[in-house]
Amino acid sequence: MAGNQETISIEDLLNKNLSGVELDEATRILYGKKLEELNLSEEAHKLAERADFELAGYIFEAKPEQTRAARKVRIGAIQNKIVAPTTESVVTQRDALHSRIGVLIEAAVLSGVNIVCMQETWHMPFAFCTRERLPWTEFAESAENGPTTLFCKQLAKKFGIVIISPILERDENEVIWNTAVVISHTGEVIGKTRKNHIPRVGDFNESTYYMESTLGHRVFETAFGKIAINICYGRHHPQNWMMFALNGADIIFNPSATVGGLSEPIWPIEARNAAIANHVYTVAINRVGTESFPYEFTSGDGKPAHKEFGHFYGSSYVAAPDGSRSPGLSRIRDGVLVAEVDLNACRQVKDSWGFRMTQRLDLYAKELQEFIKPDYKQNILKEL
Amino acid sequence: MAGNQETISIEDLLNKNLSGVELDEATRILYGKKLEELNLSEEAHKLAERADFELAGYIFEAKPEQTRAARKVRIGAIQNKIVAPTTESVVTQRDALHSRIGVLIEAAVLSGVNIVCMQETWHMPFAFCTRERLPWTEFAESAENGPTTLFCKQLAKKFGIVIISPILERDENEVIWNTAVVISHTGEVIGKTRKNHIPRVGDFNESTYYMESTLGHRVFETAFGKIAINICYGRHHPQNWMMFALNGADIIFNPSATVGGLSEPIWPIEARNAAIANHVYTVAINRVGTESFPYEFTSGDGKPAHKEFGHFYGSSYVAAPDGSRSPGLSRIRDGVLVAEVDLNACRQVKDSWGFRMTQRLDLYAKELQEFIKPDYKQNILKEL
Repeated sequence: MAGNQETISIEDLLNKNLSGVELDEATRILYGKKLEELNLSEEAHKLAERADFELAGYIFEAKPEQTRAARKVRIGAIQNKIVAPTTESVVTQRDALHSRIGVLIEAAVLSGVNIVCMQETWHMPFAFCTRERLPWTEFAESAENGPTTLFCKQLAKKFGIVIISPILERDENEVIWNTAVVISHTGEVIGKTRKNHIPRVGDFNESTYYMESTLGHRVFETAFGKIAINICYGRHHPQNWMMFALNGADIIFNPSATVGGLSEPIWPIEARNAAIANHVYTVAINRVGTESFPYEFTSGDGKPAHKEFGHFYGSSYVAAPDGSRSPGLSRIRDGVLVAEVDLNACRQVKDSWGFRMTQRLDLYAKELQEFIKPDYKQNILKEL
Repeated sequence: MAGNQETISIEDLLNKNLSGVELDEATRILYGKKLEELNLSEEAHKLAERADFELAGYIFEAKPEQTRAARKVRIGAIQNKIVAPTTESVVTQRDALHSRIGVLIEAAVLSGVNIVCMQETWHMPFAFCTRERLPWTEFAESAENGPTTLFCKQLAKKFGIVIISPILERDENEVIWNTAVVISHTGEVIGKTRKNHIPRVGDFNESTYYMESTLGHRVFETAFGKIAINICYGRHHPQNWMMFALNGADIIFNPSATVGGLSEPIWPIEARNAAIANHVYTVAINRVGTESFPYEFTSGDGKPAHKEFGHFYGSSYVAAPDGSRSPGLSRIRDGVLVAEVDLNACRQVKDSWGFRMTQRLDLYAKELQEFIKPDYKQNILKEL
């Protein structure tokens, strides 16, 4: 069930085999509607061809309003493989990723992107499967002035874009965290947020390296809108998405690293459900490729020790508050996904469906308060 | 965007146009895996043919455990059109539905079903679009001993099955509610639960007829497992699914009535996301057909007055805790969907993914308590 490495994407399968009304109907039922493709610059397309990555862009529209101008923003989601083998030095590996991401960000900028987000801990391999400390913890760096943040600050200022940079952080007390740094279009760090939910499943031995965030559910007010970052495993927790939305986010990014098997079929569901339930845009970004490590490790699944993590299947996508979504990027290639969104759609869908009004949060606040008490009794009716 | 009436189902489109490895890959990505089909009795199939409804069955498996026997249960989801025109008398309309559902339940019983659930307010047309009182409020009946409950009690006892009967209820104080009655395999009413979230959108003028439930999130312990009922609009609210799961439900039914346009593309997402997030089985059941009413009404959408509600697109399905799901029933025909599930899968996925452990409900209880205060300030960071 780990998936066929030859499958480019589900969209590719559909487009190859269906046509006419049948393709229209499949698109409507599976994607909400057919989105108009963005007309991206020839320069951007040439760069994508030259540097061998996918470049795709779509438009999510909103209705015109009488009292608010449209608030169009272009979002860029970047997915990529690691560049240097994991046997290379930490600095070599990181520099190679900086250099690769520099090119992908350039394509995003050539495509008019205002806010760009990379995948989880993009400056390193996802080495947490190994449970080894060195050299992997050496990738951890200061969120405020580590080399990856300095790299992003420079690009953000140069291009006037907001950059969301998910990294492995080492804080001033030498504690390691899974963090996303938000850098403003002026090149300044607005702040950071940390991963709220840490997995303990299969090769995702992250609780060996860092604890759950204590920073709550911060939202960042940028020049291009209010954004939040739900890092990876937090996408499985509807409450996490909800709190970011309640704090005012219009776009919630989900930088991730997840491999085939169980998670691939649920990948298209969770971030999209969050967009629907919270009247926000969500941006689901996953790694691509297979990462191999120097020493073997086990996965707690009864299988022999091995050196490969499994296939990170990419498939990054954007979902809109009306439940429509973009096609996914490839399962096997690096890519830049550009989405032009109008943030006015969030309030428009909110006013139409009105889930915020019908949400009864007072009820759930009360019920959850009861639930977490040690003497909570489940509300169960049995036949007399 | 209301959908092509000729489209039988997305599964039909895929099966007609894809084959071999490509169909396998599409099935894996879109459905989690290919489920084995249940071998249902010839008698059941003949009945379905004779009475013109779809009958389909699938097996959701769990692993064998050392200390627990398998807990296999067959669930039946019933979707149907109204039978008599809405111009007929209330009793004629209701009797025609009783009679039709009697046949569909018989097919479910011939298929070995233990728990059956009908669609929302199955004993009547979904007349809330009209905003008229009479004759529609005359469909409201006692949950304990109204004609529909008596009809179900008799079937439940005769066949030894649990029946979930979603009805329009008139309580002892003459207050109307949107209710689901749970009837044990002995024919006794175990209890009732009511709709927690009431829509106010388009033709769904239900807040004109009934208020939100005050019964909380009851779970029913039946001979075949612990079940809960999230009625219709509650599926848009992840907290509603969650509270039923926290109270111990292994299966959450979602009897619904929803029409094309906006909701069809989000229909496959929400109940499935709930199964994933809460490690439970979910059963999403929708009406079929187009209901026409005697007097015209408007839909708050700038369109002229009309007498038709729109197309209820059926597409009922079952989703499993591992994120896999059954194909949907037809968009246009009555149907009985049978799913053999092993309830042990709920704990197995819970122990594997462990979202209950990583869920941090203490954090959300605290944050929601803060949020509902009138002076709550959103947690927003701005550039200095």
